[in-house]
Amino acid sequence: MTEIPPSHPRYRSLMTREGLVKGMKKGIVAEAGLIAHGRGEAFDYLIGERTLPGALIAEQVAAQTLKNARHPVISVNGNTAVLAPKEIIELAGLTGARIEVNLFHRTEERVGRIVSILKKAGAKEVLGEVPDARIPGLAHERGKCSSKGIWSADIILIPLEDGDRAQALKKMGRFVISIDLNPLSRTSRAADISIVDEVSRALKNMIEFLKSGKEPGIKDFDNRLYLGRIVDHIAQGLMGLYAKEESTGNPEESKE
Amino acid sequence: MTEIPPSHPRYRSLMTREGLVKGMKKGIVAEAGLIAHGRGEAFDYLIGERTLPGALIAEQVAAQTLKNARHPVISVNGNTAVLAPKEIIELAGLTGARIEVNLFHRTEERVGRIVSILKKAGAKEVLGEVPDARIPGLAHERGKCSSKGIWSADIILIPLEDGDRAQALKKMGRFVISIDLNPLSRTSRAADISIVDEVSRALKNMIEFLKSGKEPGIKDFDNRLYLGRIVDHIAQGLMGLYAKEESTGNPEESKE
Repeated sequence: MTEIPPSHPRYRSLMTREGLVKGMKKGIVAEAGLIAHGRGEAFDYLIGERTLPGALIAEQVAAQTLKNARHPVISVNGNTAVLAPKEIIELAGLTGARIEVNLFHRTEERVGRIVSILKKAGAKEVLGEVPDARIPGLAHERGKCSSKGIWSADIILIPLEDGDRAQALKKMGRFVISIDLNPLSRTSRAADISIVDEVSRALKNMIEFLKSGKEPGIKDFDNRLYLGRIVDHIAQGLMGLYAKEESTGNPEESKE
Repeated sequence: MTEIPPSHPRYRSLMTREGLVKGMKKGIVAEAGLIAHGRGEAFDYLIGERTLPGALIAEQVAAQTLKNARHPVISVNGNTAVLAPKEIIELAGLTGARIEVNLFHRTEERVGRIVSILKKAGAKEVLGEVPDARIPGLAHERGKCSSKGIWSADIILIPLEDGDRAQALKKMGRFVISIDLNPLSRTSRAADISIVDEVSRALKNMIEFLKSGKEPGIKDFDNRLYLGRIVDHIAQGLMGLYAKEESTGNPEESKE
């Protein structure tokens, strides 16, 4: 890729992209993971590249739920390992969750590389290299999991997860917390708590909330109601974005 | 990537992705091109993966404009070469346009490979391998172009173009026709005619229109008015999509 000056209006987004491209070249991120990141970028752009108030509440409820779980597990794939390794480890520490590398495009080499990244970033234990259980309803490679991790978990956090797998985990009876920028994705729809936010922002908010020792901002969290509001917000924002750029004549911020 | 059964609800989209990943492995598509494709996918999903009525009119006006041009040029990059090589060649034939390979992430190797693909697909002449002119206002590699092509063109068709370059072409005084699924992108906003449609659908519609010998469905085409309508349509569709899935309980079609 090309050198990007820090003054570029899309500097942060472009640097994130560079990180993923490097991750792909090193065999950490799947090629399809780059395309998936692009889809996420489009939704983040529509959301306004910030945490919506409703997402913050979902993050607080999710953090509390993970902390109260009997056996919480955080599932990590290549994109997540590149985008937020330190946050994954810190959240695991604060909630007592186990970390399991679990890939849609599984190869043993990629699993090993992701485990290395997480251990370098400070993780003591990372499951996933020796899968000894299976998620029912998924093709062989996609269903592999660890009996000490996802298999025996009660609550699972799945950042950037594939829809088939999110549904399969739900069918297994797990309580599923997703992080996915598309509020209409199968993953967001399958989850019990659907966090619609960028993964590193979401994890940072969860960490900050747990450190604060506060209670979540809401008691009875209704996930479907909240998802509907997010969709509404994006739709309204889209029209607002158009109107705003129309009046300022400044489309500079709108893309790349 | 993984084997995909034709029965998969997202078969076509997944096969397109595979084509781009193969293109990247062969050095035709830039890594950033995969991410850009993902962004496009998200917008196509919001549009409903079909040509909106307003987009069809833009395509007709654009086809007619290219045909009436003194010196029309079609700019081709890696993604376009993978997604619609035959359509590019057929449209060039019908409008008398020259084809120029012009890359944002330019390397001579990639230019050569894209020229080969187009020639294999039947193109007689493809410009771009020997750039001898510069688009003003762009960094060296990004500004390279051909004096027989983009440099001397009056009308330029730019499918899947970067925003900086679309703006630079406009500043050069060219009449710019874009194909971009994001109606708010800098490319869509810089263009004189902004086609908001998937590239192969857009090109097929343009070809079909020219073959029909008909007149465009509208006389005074107002690009800004039309872009506003597309944004409105996406926003309405987003809320409709949510309501529909909410009522049918069938989120299967929504992602991947």
